[in-house]
Amino acid sequence: MGIVLAAGQGKRMKSKLYKVLHKVCGKPMVGHVVSALEQIDAKRKVVVVGHGADSVKSYLGERVEYAMQEQQLGTGHAVLQAKALLGEEDGLTVVLYGDTPLITNASLLDMIKLHQETGAAATVMTAIMEDPTGLGRIIRDSSGRLSSIVEQKDCNDQERAIKEINSGMYCFTNRKLFDALNKVTNQNAQGEYYLTDVIGILVGDNEIVQAYCTHDAMETLGVNDKVQLSEAERIMRARINNKHMLAGVTLLDPLTTYIETDVQIGADTIVAPGSVIRGNTVIGEDCYIGPQADITDSTIADGVQVKYAVLSEAEVGNATAIGPYAYLRPGAKLGSNVKIGDFVEIKNATLADDVKVSHLSYIGDAIVGKNVNFGCGAITVNYDGFNKQLTEVGEDAFIGSNVNLIAPLKIGKGAYVVAGSTITHDVEPNDVAIARERQVNKAGYAAKLRSKFSEKKQQTKS
Amino acid sequence: MGIVLAAGQGKRMKSKLYKVLHKVCGKPMVGHVVSALEQIDAKRKVVVVGHGADSVKSYLGERVEYAMQEQQLGTGHAVLQAKALLGEEDGLTVVLYGDTPLITNASLLDMIKLHQETGAAATVMTAIMEDPTGLGRIIRDSSGRLSSIVEQKDCNDQERAIKEINSGMYCFTNRKLFDALNKVTNQNAQGEYYLTDVIGILVGDNEIVQAYCTHDAMETLGVNDKVQLSEAERIMRARINNKHMLAGVTLLDPLTTYIETDVQIGADTIVAPGSVIRGNTVIGEDCYIGPQADITDSTIADGVQVKYAVLSEAEVGNATAIGPYAYLRPGAKLGSNVKIGDFVEIKNATLADDVKVSHLSYIGDAIVGKNVNFGCGAITVNYDGFNKQLTEVGEDAFIGSNVNLIAPLKIGKGAYVVAGSTITHDVEPNDVAIARERQVNKAGYAAKLRSKFSEKKQQTKS
Amino acid sequence: MGIVLAAGQGKRMKSKLYKVLHKVCGKPMVGHVVSALEQIDAKRKVVVVGHGADSVKSYLGERVEYAMQEQQLGTGHAVLQAKALLGEEDGLTVVLYGDTPLITNASLLDMIKLHQETGAAATVMTAIMEDPTGLGRIIRDSSGRLSSIVEQKDCNDQERAIKEINSGMYCFTNRKLFDALNKVTNQNAQGEYYLTDVIGILVGDNEIVQAYCTHDAMETLGVNDKVQLSEAERIMRARINNKHMLAGVTLLDPLTTYIETDVQIGADTIVAPGSVIRGNTVIGEDCYIGPQADITDSTIADGVQVKYAVLSEAEVGNATAIGPYAYLRPGAKLGSNVKIGDFVEIKNATLADDVKVSHLSYIGDAIVGKNVNFGCGAITVNYDGFNKQLTEVGEDAFIGSNVNLIAPLKIGKGAYVVAGSTITHDVEPNDVAIARERQVNKAGYAAKLRSKFSEKKQQTKS
Repeated sequence: MGIVLAAGQGKRMKSKLYKVLHKVCGKPMVGHVVSALEQIDAKRKVVVVGHGADSVKSYLGERVEYAMQEQQLGTGHAVLQAKALLGEEDGLTVVLYGDTPLITNASLLDMIKLHQETGAAATVMTAIMEDPTGLGRIIRDSSGRLSSIVEQKDCNDQERAIKEINSGMYCFTNRKLFDALNKVTNQNAQGEYYLTDVIGILVGDNEIVQAYCTHDAMETLGVNDKVQLSEAERIMRARINNKHMLAGVTLLDPLTTYIETDVQIGADTIVAPGSVIRGNTVIGEDCYIGPQADITDSTIADGVQVKYAVLSEAEVGNATAIGPYAYLRPGAKLGSNVKIGDFVEIKNATLADDVKVSHLSYIGDAIVGKNVNFGCGAITVNYDGFNKQLTEVGEDAFIGSNVNLIAPLKIGKGAYVVAGSTITHDVEPNDVAIARERQVNKAGYAAKLRSKFSEKKQQTKS
Repeated sequence: MGIVLAAGQGKRMKSKLYKVLHKVCGKPMVGHVVSALEQIDAKRKVVVVGHGADSVKSYLGERVEYAMQEQQLGTGHAVLQAKALLGEEDGLTVVLYGDTPLITNASLLDMIKLHQETGAAATVMTAIMEDPTGLGRIIRDSSGRLSSIVEQKDCNDQERAIKEINSGMYCFTNRKLFDALNKVTNQNAQGEYYLTDVIGILVGDNEIVQAYCTHDAMETLGVNDKVQLSEAERIMRARINNKHMLAGVTLLDPLTTYIETDVQIGADTIVAPGSVIRGNTVIGEDCYIGPQADITDSTIADGVQVKYAVLSEAEVGNATAIGPYAYLRPGAKLGSNVKIGDFVEIKNATLADDVKVSHLSYIGDAIVGKNVNFGCGAITVNYDGFNKQLTEVGEDAFIGSNVNLIAPLKIGKGAYVVAGSTITHDVEPNDVAIARERQVNKAGYAAKLRSKFSEKKQQTKS
Repeated sequence: MGIVLAAGQGKRMKSKLYKVLHKVCGKPMVGHVVSALEQIDAKRKVVVVGHGADSVKSYLGERVEYAMQEQQLGTGHAVLQAKALLGEEDGLTVVLYGDTPLITNASLLDMIKLHQETGAAATVMTAIMEDPTGLGRIIRDSSGRLSSIVEQKDCNDQERAIKEINSGMYCFTNRKLFDALNKVTNQNAQGEYYLTDVIGILVGDNEIVQAYCTHDAMETLGVNDKVQLSEAERIMRARINNKHMLAGVTLLDPLTTYIETDVQIGADTIVAPGSVIRGNTVIGEDCYIGPQADITDSTIADGVQVKYAVLSEAEVGNATAIGPYAYLRPGAKLGSNVKIGDFVEIKNATLADDVKVSHLSYIGDAIVGKNVNFGCGAITVNYDGFNKQLTEVGEDAFIGSNVNLIAPLKIGKGAYVVAGSTITHDVEPNDVAIARERQVNKAGYAAKLRSKFSEKKQQTKS
């Protein structure tokens, strides 16, 4: 079982948003902690909520059970709120915090293993800190078991030099936890019920208490302000990036590559600096992503290039090239070997294989057949102020530069629309459509025009 | 009082620009130093100039007084040039360098406090350096006062192991400074007058000399080449970013967030990676800025989104969304709930609330009423080669895609301009304006056109 | 002479690409190593290839000779494959690895100097490692010569504490190398022939063996997975950036500035964050490059601004300004004082001095005279589906907004093309050309149009 303490307000975050809902690599902190419990298959998971309870419940939904801590009277008091739900359970309970997003299931499993193998009543997760100032020191007996936790203010010189500290996270034999909690009092300077006191009570009862020291002290990092939030983000980002690199993804600069937790990327894909990849994005093999690609909830096949482009809820086929400076909005579905060039937006449009939209175009609410070429500046006029309407372009059609296709509209297979035309009626297959005025040249008239404009400028000045 | 030594040439900068004028986080180094003196309310501030004197004076203007050091004969000589201005003053004088941009007013105040409380004649600012090689070591007596400064070459083994070094910055009782300076000679290997010698003279005169050790050795970093300049930039950037984060701004990656010193940002605003925010920019609360927003001298209200966009001297109202790939140039004034989409430029134009300019548009020299919609590719033609002219669009008007509005022009309230039109004359309220040729479809002609083009291609080849 | 061992497969790279061909700062790793040998004027250079031999040969071509190692039987066996080529040579041979891209010619020269001055038979390149675990320790005798190399598993406590390790790189007196190699056996746990054994053999023969310790342990970094690849990239990037900064280039953030090895940049040029500069790019003095400029194989003169732009095989004259959001493709040749604004693409086009292309334009396959102004949205229509054709615009011409210039086309000097025109025929110098329909305003018709669209919307819903 798992209990996550998530009732504190988080004043130092200086935020309207409840502390444990601040995101790290795209996921609220408490979500990371609950994920760790899910990964160890915790049978029941209770989140103790208080400040911002509704928003936490709204985010976590039915992934967990909830206990309400109306008043914040200390960590021991917080855990006690879970007694109604868990008090009668046998087995183990891990106690975590909603603001320690870096804890891993691997460490939890190691802690639990130590706990179980040694028949402990409690196991404290500890860490080695270069500067342990302010933190409770771990005193071990000769057998390595924990004999006590000494708070900073109570340390003698020898104890103060100890670098192993209490992370505040624990594994308990569940019934012993709640039995001991009943004995915890608030007779201290703060008038609070401390969960730490349970350890002293269990040691006093001659129960076995272990200390499990994490390999990476950063796992125990609690986030209390936005500097620490950025630190947690940095560390989690490095973890995610290392995972991808070890699996064969090349990150040219992991420091400036921002990949959210659930993203998948194939081997031999190169991600160039400044790229941001979010949500449920899946990227295939042999792609070149970036520099500065921004991809959210999109599916990208193999051999795709995406540079200086923003993609959201898009699908991209094999060997398609996107950018620089392109924008694929939700519903953009591109086939294989498509070219989306510079200053091009695609929205809610299906483009079949080999379509080319090279520059300065907007294709929205459209179905485009194979091998269609859109000239520079060609656009679909899909909106009349009220309706979003469909444009269909048959395969092999050629849409000239700066053509306006006024939807609803069908351009037949193999049709040819000449540059500069505004097309309002359907074009049959293999027809040529034209809608532009003939050119008139006025001989020698440029000087007159210029002097007219120049005079106007003089007048404006005077 | 304060004296800033800023006469050196800075050869190692390898630059035509005078050393102390190189910028750190958008402000010349000497500007940062003078700001620190202003923040401690220094009564008089003298900058000793030499190389590049005119450009330094031009930058600092009347914020300070100037002393000219024609020849660079050492730091003692440099300070002596301020004697004509300050020699007769009572009180304290802080001596700083124009190339140490990281010095803070907090450290200066702490140094001054120590100086005053102990009745010192001089207080040396010192720092702890992991590797003090090459720097003068601080020798303190048993009471903690400074007894001497030993240069690297004169150190015995014990002295060489000392990690507290002389930063070269000082606080002096003013008259004692100038009295001692008169005794400094240039009888040394370099033939220079060293300010450091003043310390020896004062100690010799049994004056009290203190050493104030900074908390952060980086405050004393002198910038001599562009590697050090980038280091100073990095540290100052981190300081600025920490300040914002502690005040409630979320920086997803502080390492790649570039905020100049005077920028203001509201709490709960998120700044995504790669963003650059300069000058007198003010950003409200609950905004999402970035990735890769570039904002200079702009005012942004609450709840605004700016992604992949460049803004310069723009004003943006509440809940307005900008980007990706938008450019707001000086004079862009956007109301609330405006949408500026991709590949859109706004210049010297006022857009009232709820205006939408979604893609591939340019609105320049314009006044646009509430709730106007600009279709894709619609532009204002504000320039005839001589004059920049005004376009006015009344509220609720609809400007179709790829419409050219040829200024000067008035489009009335509620008017509707159909796509593909070039509009040269005013449109009355609620009128529909159209200026485009009818479409002609030439049945089956596409094949002919293609074979014509294809033949041409063959001919070109042959 | 030099031997580069490059036959390993590199399984941990998890890549279809052969290990030594992975790029660091734009150049395959083995290319960096061979460059180092070229820089020390190695008379003959042999690369021992195995896995992926063809692709390595294809990349390195005739810069080196090749020896084939069919089976990977150890480093000693690998070097032995070079015997047929080098066995009869006098002089020195340096043995390096294809996956250590950070080795510098300076270190090689220092190692060779020590080797020669001391009459050594072999000199081992060593490095100081904070954590030497797993690496062979260097045991020196009282004179500083190498007496043995002890592998981790054979270390006693004293030896295990030694931080000087064997990098695996060596300088040998060539004939002694191959003589000793003949004595190396594969009688060990791995059944491999180790190059390291040569050292023991030479020491046993009372030959002089030296250890040369690198100043920077990173020079010996071997890349075995993509985390290490990113580390090598980071270090080489820092080296390149430091070189430019010390030469007077200002890098606002070296951490996010990506400059490939062969790029040249003039003093007093500022490079802003997120910029990527590749290939044979040459940039002049006093430029402002970035933020987020992406420049490949381009030549940029003095005083140029490039912000948020992608350039590839472009030439840019003095004081020209590019961006934000511009794209210069191969063959873009810009004169001095040209302005390329936002959402502009230039491809295979020569633009003379003072040309302005301010926004939303595409100029492809064109020759443009001095002082031409392209209005917003003006484009060249250079492609008919078969042919790319030329547009010529004479000096001082004015091309109105949203004009389509249908190639092949000549616009004469001083001609004026009014906005919204599609131009299909040549325009003589000083003519005005127009090709657009007259505007019709339909009084009060907007309401009708809106109700029509609105009704349609209702119908669509129902």
